[in-house]
Amino acid sequence: MAHIAAQPYDYPLPSPDRIALVIIDMQRDFLEPGGFGAALGNDVLPLRTIVPTVKKLQQAFRDRGGLIIQTVEGHRPDLSDCPPAKRDRGNSSLKIGDPGPMGRILILGEPGNGIIPELAPQADEIVIAKPGKGAFYATSLSSILQRHGITHLIFTGVTTEVCVQTTMREANDRGYECLLVEDGTASYFPDFKQATLEMIRAQGGIVGWTATADQVLAGFTTLAPVADSATPLR
Amino acid sequence: MAHIAAQPYDYPLPSPDRIALVIIDMQRDFLEPGGFGAALGNDVLPLRTIVPTVKKLQQAFRDRGGLIIQTVEGHRPDLSDCPPAKRDRGNSSLKIGDPGPMGRILILGEPGNGIIPELAPQADEIVIAKPGKGAFYATSLSSILQRHGITHLIFTGVTTEVCVQTTMREANDRGYECLLVEDGTASYFPDFKQATLEMIRAQGGIVGWTATADQVLAGFTTLAPVADSATPLR
Repeated sequence: MAHIAAQPYDYPLPSPDRIALVIIDMQRDFLEPGGFGAALGNDVLPLRTIVPTVKKLQQAFRDRGGLIIQTVEGHRPDLSDCPPAKRDRGNSSLKIGDPGPMGRILILGEPGNGIIPELAPQADEIVIAKPGKGAFYATSLSSILQRHGITHLIFTGVTTEVCVQTTMREANDRGYECLLVEDGTASYFPDFKQATLEMIRAQGGIVGWTATADQVLAGFTTLAPVADSATPLR
Repeated sequence: MAHIAAQPYDYPLPSPDRIALVIIDMQRDFLEPGGFGAALGNDVLPLRTIVPTVKKLQQAFRDRGGLIIQTVEGHRPDLSDCPPAKRDRGNSSLKIGDPGPMGRILILGEPGNGIIPELAPQADEIVIAKPGKGAFYATSLSSILQRHGITHLIFTGVTTEVCVQTTMREANDRGYECLLVEDGTASYFPDFKQATLEMIRAQGGIVGWTATADQVLAGFTTLAPVADSATPLR
């Protein structure tokens, strides 16, 4: 059976049209100086080391015709979808909605909220705007995955222990078979990334699997391309 | 202002009727030999060290008339709410629904699915049965918290990095101010517990706060009791 060599054991691959690539929050806010990530006191530049790996996976899914879903964390300009608890948390000098070097912090449509140019989605690719750390809460992600018949999710993006982990846990509860790409995810805190990888695959894969991008791509070589991905759903 | 001395900074306390105690999954399945926790290969007995602490908090909320919500993870006898991905995961000899020493594994109503006797809920206390690790997915927890006007959640229970963390992250996305009781939560893996505490309070409390049970109880001494908790909602 087609599979990806993974931890804690081989990740079985289904029919290729049932696999989606999920790219979490590769937005300027978190990856460039002057955004929300920096406002929380983080050095954002180390996150950029995963960009070539995520790009390689994105290209592989494009070549195969597989579904790609990107997420961005952001709020409406009037902050009506931002809980006061979120805006008030912490002691940051720049809060959500405040003007920053890349526009208003974490506001949909502002320059800082855009996906980094290297990973810009194509016009027919899905981008989910999400008000939380998890991509299932208050979004149409569940409906989209069901409509596309997706059962398996390959996760990449930032940050590992916050938005990636939260979304992967939501997906796991909903019955998706989830794999996190070890070198396709990053955190401001390398120890948190490592702990998250270990938590996910503990107890027989209680949240899911982990593998390297090369292991994922090697697994895909045994799969046929997705024949009809260019056909819109109807 | 009333507060709990906590990390990463003081946890402000609201009007006392807005605070609920959440006790996650203190069920025999996870805390006694022969249940689902043991079936996943874990030594379950170390989890029991938190029982007196959780009981002390439970009693404090009862004395104050505060809302107490317990959760149990379990599935319907026909497994119709158990994703195949969950049942098939791992290499356990005992899977969800199989007969075990305390009845069918992780099935609602079986002896193993009951809350441990020390923390048994009173007849008028809320117990949420949940099919996932997170207590918000596919349950009425959101509605219940809204109906009671709850804004602040004090988390206890097991296991720290699985069901407790997942639920706390769901609650944080929904705008609740969450505090995890450091000595009122436990994991089969002490390192995962420690990493989870650190992840939660990093970046200015990106998921919430942590404090000891004594710090929580000390904070409560500045609050009035909840006057009308015995009055049913109508």
